[in-house]
Amino acid sequence: MWNKVMTRLDDYYQEMVDIRRYLHQYPELSFQEEKTSQYIADTYEKLGIPYQTNIGGNGVVATLKGGKPGKKIALRADFDALPIQDEKDVPYKSKVEGVMHACGHDGHTATLLVLAKVLHEFKEDLPGTVVFVHQHAEELAPGGAKSIMESGILDDVDAVFGTHLWSNTPVGTIETSLKAFMAGADRFEILIKGKGGHGAQPHQTKDAIVIGSQLVTTLQNIVSRRVDPLGTAVLTIGTFQSGSTFNIIADTAKITGTVRTFDPEIQDLIIEEMEKVIKGVCIGYDADYEFDYEKGYPPVINHPEEAALVLKAAEQVPGVEHSQEVVPGMVGEDFSYYILDKPGAFFFTGAKKEDHYYPHHHPMFDIDERALPIAAKALAQTYKVYQEK
Amino acid sequence: MWNKVMTRLDDYYQEMVDIRRYLHQYPELSFQEEKTSQYIADTYEKLGIPYQTNIGGNGVVATLKGGKPGKKIALRADFDALPIQDEKDVPYKSKVEGVMHACGHDGHTATLLVLAKVLHEFKEDLPGTVVFVHQHAEELAPGGAKSIMESGILDDVDAVFGTHLWSNTPVGTIETSLKAFMAGADRFEILIKGKGGHGAQPHQTKDAIVIGSQLVTTLQNIVSRRVDPLGTAVLTIGTFQSGSTFNIIADTAKITGTVRTFDPEIQDLIIEEMEKVIKGVCIGYDADYEFDYEKGYPPVINHPEEAALVLKAAEQVPGVEHSQEVVPGMVGEDFSYYILDKPGAFFFTGAKKEDHYYPHHHPMFDIDERALPIAAKALAQTYKVYQEK
Amino acid sequence: MWNKVMTRLDDYYQEMVDIRRYLHQYPELSFQEEKTSQYIADTYEKLGIPYQTNIGGNGVVATLKGGKPGKKIALRADFDALPIQDEKDVPYKSKVEGVMHACGHDGHTATLLVLAKVLHEFKEDLPGTVVFVHQHAEELAPGGAKSIMESGILDDVDAVFGTHLWSNTPVGTIETSLKAFMAGADRFEILIKGKGGHGAQPHQTKDAIVIGSQLVTTLQNIVSRRVDPLGTAVLTIGTFQSGSTFNIIADTAKITGTVRTFDPEIQDLIIEEMEKVIKGVCIGYDADYEFDYEKGYPPVINHPEEAALVLKAAEQVPGVEHSQEVVPGMVGEDFSYYILDKPGAFFFTGAKKEDHYYPHHHPMFDIDERALPIAAKALAQTYKVYQEK
Amino acid sequence: MWNKVMTRLDDYYQEMVDIRRYLHQYPELSFQEEKTSQYIADTYEKLGIPYQTNIGGNGVVATLKGGKPGKKIALRADFDALPIQDEKDVPYKSKVEGVMHACGHDGHTATLLVLAKVLHEFKEDLPGTVVFVHQHAEELAPGGAKSIMESGILDDVDAVFGTHLWSNTPVGTIETSLKAFMAGADRFEILIKGKGGHGAQPHQTKDAIVIGSQLVTTLQNIVSRRVDPLGTAVLTIGTFQSGSTFNIIADTAKITGTVRTFDPEIQDLIIEEMEKVIKGVCIGYDADYEFDYEKGYPPVINHPEEAALVLKAAEQVPGVEHSQEVVPGMVGEDFSYYILDKPGAFFFTGAKKEDHYYPHHHPMFDIDERALPIAAKALAQTYKVYQEK
Repeated sequence: MWNKVMTRLDDYYQEMVDIRRYLHQYPELSFQEEKTSQYIADTYEKLGIPYQTNIGGNGVVATLKGGKPGKKIALRADFDALPIQDEKDVPYKSKVEGVMHACGHDGHTATLLVLAKVLHEFKEDLPGTVVFVHQHAEELAPGGAKSIMESGILDDVDAVFGTHLWSNTPVGTIETSLKAFMAGADRFEILIKGKGGHGAQPHQTKDAIVIGSQLVTTLQNIVSRRVDPLGTAVLTIGTFQSGSTFNIIADTAKITGTVRTFDPEIQDLIIEEMEKVIKGVCIGYDADYEFDYEKGYPPVINHPEEAALVLKAAEQVPGVEHSQEVVPGMVGEDFSYYILDKPGAFFFTGAKKEDHYYPHHHPMFDIDERALPIAAKALAQTYKVYQEK
Repeated sequence: MWNKVMTRLDDYYQEMVDIRRYLHQYPELSFQEEKTSQYIADTYEKLGIPYQTNIGGNGVVATLKGGKPGKKIALRADFDALPIQDEKDVPYKSKVEGVMHACGHDGHTATLLVLAKVLHEFKEDLPGTVVFVHQHAEELAPGGAKSIMESGILDDVDAVFGTHLWSNTPVGTIETSLKAFMAGADRFEILIKGKGGHGAQPHQTKDAIVIGSQLVTTLQNIVSRRVDPLGTAVLTIGTFQSGSTFNIIADTAKITGTVRTFDPEIQDLIIEEMEKVIKGVCIGYDADYEFDYEKGYPPVINHPEEAALVLKAAEQVPGVEHSQEVVPGMVGEDFSYYILDKPGAFFFTGAKKEDHYYPHHHPMFDIDERALPIAAKALAQTYKVYQEK
Repeated sequence: MWNKVMTRLDDYYQEMVDIRRYLHQYPELSFQEEKTSQYIADTYEKLGIPYQTNIGGNGVVATLKGGKPGKKIALRADFDALPIQDEKDVPYKSKVEGVMHACGHDGHTATLLVLAKVLHEFKEDLPGTVVFVHQHAEELAPGGAKSIMESGILDDVDAVFGTHLWSNTPVGTIETSLKAFMAGADRFEILIKGKGGHGAQPHQTKDAIVIGSQLVTTLQNIVSRRVDPLGTAVLTIGTFQSGSTFNIIADTAKITGTVRTFDPEIQDLIIEEMEKVIKGVCIGYDADYEFDYEKGYPPVINHPEEAALVLKAAEQVPGVEHSQEVVPGMVGEDFSYYILDKPGAFFFTGAKKEDHYYPHHHPMFDIDERALPIAAKALAQTYKVYQEK
Repeated sequence: MWNKVMTRLDDYYQEMVDIRRYLHQYPELSFQEEKTSQYIADTYEKLGIPYQTNIGGNGVVATLKGGKPGKKIALRADFDALPIQDEKDVPYKSKVEGVMHACGHDGHTATLLVLAKVLHEFKEDLPGTVVFVHQHAEELAPGGAKSIMESGILDDVDAVFGTHLWSNTPVGTIETSLKAFMAGADRFEILIKGKGGHGAQPHQTKDAIVIGSQLVTTLQNIVSRRVDPLGTAVLTIGTFQSGSTFNIIADTAKITGTVRTFDPEIQDLIIEEMEKVIKGVCIGYDADYEFDYEKGYPPVINHPEEAALVLKAAEQVPGVEHSQEVVPGMVGEDFSYYILDKPGAFFFTGAKKEDHYYPHHHPMFDIDERALPIAAKALAQTYKVYQEK
């Protein structure tokens, strides 16, 4: 049966491309993906696969029970887009001003929908149960994964797998890590509350720009001196906004940034040290502050056995030339929620355009669509191998 | 004659108030003061005092030749307003959205127009020639004073005097300094040109916020270590704008600020040191920069003899209780241009509102109008004493 | 035969202790270990094992050719001591003022000498050839390992193994890593050359303390912003010495420190970035500098197969309860030179004193001597397993 | 009489030089000036002028009551030396290893002793009473002036005058200021108490060098941002000592420095701000500190009338070519204590060596001895003019 599945996935290549390109033209922002959600529901309706909508928000979950006994395994694809203006010159360019599928979630959706169609065709011989999880809102905290898990709909699944089309990994390559795979990504905001005044009379003010600059400089010591050098952490200030005009001393400075870690202990250490540094710098200037730290998605920590199984399965997939372990990346993903308690693994499916490529979230981002059937096959083969485990 | 002048100025108190309040309701931004300029010209037209318009821009200069021999002395009042929203709740509140006479130039104009009217009445007995200089654009570099001086219209005057209504000096007080009175005020703009990137990959970027913060911190050393402690200098960063969102490393940081000095050598030293510091910080991060430094108005350095004469004259003015030397202020004024070569002095006429007051350039700024005739009398008496010198 | 070797090593426990304690009382500083070297040579002389002295300095290398064919394997022990005052209150306390075996090299030597004695007893049945490498000067760059390798005496060995008694790992534990095991440790020295002067006249100076402090602060950005967050690096300033008295501005500041890395690319990046930062900071103050960076020992990067073999061998050693992979440590060792080209691995033999223990290089440092025969057995078993590979 | 006084002072030029050179060869450190004190007492003994010893320490005070009525005026000379090695190559070079009259106090003493001798000769005609104050310990806080004033011996004098031979002012010049003349000079010491550790494990330490560097950097903001730009203040870090070796993270950093001000309010502000900055920086690193601030001599604030009188008197002195006001200097002097309550003034007597000169406290420091009689005459004439006032 599985050889046929692989063949059928190739047969439906054009359909995958069509679905992907359709979605690409009608992207929707996180938490606003109503039409995309409806599109997915309609597809399952036509296929005759039972599904549920409004799962944890705009999520859609379809369930295909095979004719043979086996485990219940969830496969996940996300479907939200980004607030970026599409600058590509292609026929399937986004038709929505300022919104773009600049991360490949359109491809994820196309992949999973066609995989559902094919597995449905082989329903009788299919071991176990496939749960197709179409997730909304991956790009914007708190994300859709958490609420889908909280909905309880995946409580009885045995494992969860998912893939991300990856624009700087060549087509034909499957990558994952046996443990930490993607970082946790937090967001913080600091408001320095000094005291403004005339640019010529600094002694009557508490200069928020000087305080903020001191803060940015001092915060560097957290990574350089307070985090175990064998650990991994990034603390980035993304914005520093202060002052209205050149000759007025600013009363406030607004600083935002992100922290990336793989280890909750380091994450907590950084929060604690930031609080200390901000407090100390402000005391030194007799200023006040607000510090708002919002933990983002936890790191994606693959389960070693399941991740090894993905690599093994990928080796058997036609079209996969490299199936390899990679060092973890610092970007975040809310797939992490699925595998906090459940076994599972997340992996990258190479989708790099040969001539030139752009990173994810770039206005020129695009994928090599030949990656779509490979992603589908890798998920299918992973399902198969996990059933046989 | 001069006693009568003083009395007449009191008689016209209400007219001064009316003119001031009218102008207060129709403020115009620097270099755009066409209606105000016209209003002034119309006034001289009605008075029958010869005047010229479009002097160095929107400037208006009227000349009253007295019946007695004497020196030719210029008296200056500026008439532009500021891009500030008037937040006072008074009948004469600004009727122009976002524009306000928040520095008292409306009062300066009313004072000088009524003084012209009164002196015109005593024309026959008036010694010398009065030149009424109504200057546009004091608030915005390069200012109007410079172009008025360059027009040549004041080439043959013997001295120039002027006053500023001052909101935190009590009514009845005249203040000046025998030398440096108001600071030179320069403007600078620094653009840090780093390299942006993903917030999780700092090593592939040149983090403009970190560079900019280092720069702000290091620039403090110029005043603390490089300027002679017996000299006076302020280096203020007014704005720091960098970054678009919390998880992207910014490629540029834009920093603006002001430098205040009384001494051209210190001014030049600071420019040189800033260039060195900016260059050094950028080299340390392999970043580029643009540094634009615009020298503003020179410091107002009063001529000692003329300033002493102002104080002496003020002592003789009815209503003046205190006539005193003060330490120089760090704010700037383009009156400086008039007395770079010509003898002269600038002074403050106290106009503090008794119950509560707001600093200049504040949305609630206002003056105690009883200061208007005092200002006029102080200018008149200064004129008189200078003639008799 | 090997079971008997293990038994004999236990039989000689007291002799190991005696040798170790004798050496402990007569420590010699790196490159000055003449008596220790003589002691080792004398021991081989008595044993009748051929040896060579003055190898690459004070090194002693003995060679025991077994009666059976096999590989030629070097086992290394270092024998220099440290400039530390022994503060322990034990009968075998150092008798040399200010010099102490505070790192356990005395134990390494005792272990290897007794192992040689035992293997010599079983010479007829011994497969292959054992090369006993007694290395001088591990504690002080450039170290003895490099010159021993350069002497050519180990050119024909097949592999090199060595162990370090480790004071905070429990007795009965063998630890190593399959790849990076110990960091490269470099030394740098920065001399800021400013211009001194009277404490009251900063503007006539280039304040070396302010420059140096700025430098220390800015150097933090190298680890926090310029090294790949997934890489590992430490940049520590160990000393900052500047100024003679409180009211004189210092002309120079001397700063020394260390850099630790596992990766030559990161090492080179750090050197390059340091140069840039130092240059930039000095340009900002118009100061000069000297920057001397001395690469220390390379990181100890174990060969994966040989390190795995050590762990496997250790599991078979009586008395070893835990044989485990550990995360790499940031300290350095010149054992790295032996395995730059040759296969081999370095490992820790737990020697933690049960009641209380002190870290290496501490004036109270001591080892649990029960670790000595375990170290000897682990080396012996590694030799055996490697012969059988 | 006074013309004769001037002539006699010239007659005794060689005696002044001899006394000065004798004292120059036998310098004594502050608070240890027993032989110098004895020498002075012996001189008054021989002259037959009543004197008292052990005034407030090693101080000697002689009192010469003139035959004519008049005011009681104190003239002060200090007599301690410095812990500096004399490096001049002159016959009168210091014979005491490591101790040197590197500030000219030997000359002050010679001047005052010979002046006493001359005035004694004219005792009958002398109006008023001269009090010759020979003060110990000017160079080392708390100084001798304070204890001499506290002894009460000067309670009934009408005014106090003193001069300092000044090595970079030409011979023939008298300088003073009508108000602030010399700065207050305070001393502070900061001990950062972090936590030391291995250079490779920063996360287990509180790095005292990083903390100290941050502190030095942040302290710059006090002068640049918190002191009124129209005020005057210097905050200098003179020493930064931390760490024992390059690869150990230091547990403490010792920082010393000086603060110079003319205004007690600014002095107090700086102390308060320093406390805040130190506390803030330490909180940011969870470190402790000790902050010891020792107020030194108050600023020398001349009494305007007395200082003007000095300048006027000096104009009448033969040999004085320039008698001028100067900007205040940032160095300190404990002469301040004499004129906190009493009228009086301090002035400089130019003593610059023509060919080349060295600053005070330099190992090559010397004076042009032709300044000695000028200093004596300026004091005498000041005494005369003050009597006639």
